[in-house]
Amino acid sequence: MGEFDLIERYFKRPVHSAVLGVGDDCALLQPRPGTQLAISSDMLVEGRHFLSTVDPFKLGHKALAVNLSDLAACGAKPLAFTLALALPRVDATWLEGFSRGLLALADAHGCELIGGDTTQGPLNICITVFGEVPVMAGRSQALLRSGAKVGDDIYVSGSVGDARLALEVFRGTLQVPAAVFEQARSRMDQPTPRVALGLALRGVANAAIDISDGLLGDLGHILSQSGVGARFETSFATDLIACRSNPAWSGCQSDLCLSDEQWLELVLAGGDDYELVFTASASARAAVLEAARSSQTAVTRVGQIEAAPGLRLIDGAGQLIDHRYPSFDHFA
Amino acid sequence: MGEFDLIERYFKRPVHSAVLGVGDDCALLQPRPGTQLAISSDMLVEGRHFLSTVDPFKLGHKALAVNLSDLAACGAKPLAFTLALALPRVDATWLEGFSRGLLALADAHGCELIGGDTTQGPLNICITVFGEVPVMAGRSQALLRSGAKVGDDIYVSGSVGDARLALEVFRGTLQVPAAVFEQARSRMDQPTPRVALGLALRGVANAAIDISDGLLGDLGHILSQSGVGARFETSFATDLIACRSNPAWSGCQSDLCLSDEQWLELVLAGGDDYELVFTASASARAAVLEAARSSQTAVTRVGQIEAAPGLRLIDGAGQLIDHRYPSFDHFA
Repeated sequence: MGEFDLIERYFKRPVHSAVLGVGDDCALLQPRPGTQLAISSDMLVEGRHFLSTVDPFKLGHKALAVNLSDLAACGAKPLAFTLALALPRVDATWLEGFSRGLLALADAHGCELIGGDTTQGPLNICITVFGEVPVMAGRSQALLRSGAKVGDDIYVSGSVGDARLALEVFRGTLQVPAAVFEQARSRMDQPTPRVALGLALRGVANAAIDISDGLLGDLGHILSQSGVGARFETSFATDLIACRSNPAWSGCQSDLCLSDEQWLELVLAGGDDYELVFTASASARAAVLEAARSSQTAVTRVGQIEAAPGLRLIDGAGQLIDHRYPSFDHFA
Repeated sequence: MGEFDLIERYFKRPVHSAVLGVGDDCALLQPRPGTQLAISSDMLVEGRHFLSTVDPFKLGHKALAVNLSDLAACGAKPLAFTLALALPRVDATWLEGFSRGLLALADAHGCELIGGDTTQGPLNICITVFGEVPVMAGRSQALLRSGAKVGDDIYVSGSVGDARLALEVFRGTLQVPAAVFEQARSRMDQPTPRVALGLALRGVANAAIDISDGLLGDLGHILSQSGVGARFETSFATDLIACRSNPAWSGCQSDLCLSDEQWLELVLAGGDDYELVFTASASARAAVLEAARSSQTAVTRVGQIEAAPGLRLIDGAGQLIDHRYPSFDHFA
């Protein structure tokens, strides 16, 4: 199968909202009047973002999910995406699974594949995604990292730390019951982009970011770009990791058990979560709960924005915890 | 140097036309009323699109040039681009040269870097570029592959085949005088995207494509997508390769000389040219010449669109030439 047959068979589909899709030098989008286009690119590399053994269907899902997560963090409605793909060889089974996983998630979000590129090379998946953000009274409704205000509550969506737990099991640094590993692995392989929550938070949240490099590290971007600090309650944090409530832990051997500190580190510095961390005024608590309800997404209040720079971790007894959790860095 | 320092040092610059650039979850573009956004992605892989020995400044130029060439083929005015970059390691000298070459061409075309991604991995450069196309009286002014009409003249811009000549010298299948090689190599390393010509051809050309896989192969896309055939005059074609006029050929040893058939194959099936092939009505000949003059780009008329499907090559004596030139295919 050649390059053009490959595109035709797996990736060319009719477009509905785009003016022109796959098959010309450029795709054409015509944003609706009174809207801005939110744009984000993510590149996934084998061995770095996924293991060579991953099911291609799940990889197709994840490749788009991490991009949709950026739209979610911006409060943008998904419109379309381009896919650039370097493949070591044409493998019909792999392409079939990958394209099915990719396009199933795309369809679920009404996000059209409008163009891209294919070439031979070490496996590399680069997606650029486009979303719509309204402009109201001359003001963009996009959620930015820079909007946090002193006194804001800090919230985290869904569950955090499970993907890192699965990674550490793969790395051999942790052992956990099989059922726990399966639960964690599904979070690593098939993250859920919080698109509906992001849309519901427009006009409610003051700042938002998605968690890709670790909760504290990504919250740190909000703090530095907003010129503020924060107080973070760790007593809420250990409940954020879904695997901890797995019944398979009961009766498990004690040498499999994780310490409170290990749980906390998975939550605070795990990464690869694709949940949202966001801030909202204390007067918006009811509106945040309504956004969570309408988007069917759990949110947990974990702290408060403060004027003093830096991030202070507070334990259940109100004591300051000494910490130095690293944020994930691809070149560290 | 970590991931964030790298972005800060080499790739973060203030934006002027974009609403928001590098540094948040998404970039924001607000297209002007009455315009569409033309979008194209290209992925460049070491050993496939460039040699590991290439000067990083020239590689930065080429990575953006091949994307701008897609905008040119669409008649779109460059606005912005995203850059996703996988690097084996952080090499400050390489990054300095690459970013300078990239941003120099970007500045020359008023095309802003608004976002992207960096990660560790085998060297891979994925750029997605955005351009503006006006809509007039409800009709997009984009140049498409599908617009060629029976009777249209076929034109090629600039020179074609030189990049392939350089590649064949690198591969060891051709030997040429040193001055010829230098001329050919500069066309391979630093192609000139025909943006000004593409803009001048709006409302003049009926169909256009840029030549990346080979002149005949890419013209073939116009024919199949327009549902037409063509007659192609090879007597014009051998003059399209710039290197053939290099004075260094005179007095060169006869075993370096290329046959007419070799010249023709370089022109017709070379690839990596980033020139435009386009069609326009015979009544638009003066307008095509004016577009060439105003954009300071040579154009050569090389044939005519016909109703009968297929591509017929005609020699200087008016005889049909038997041919089967392959188009470049990354997986063939």
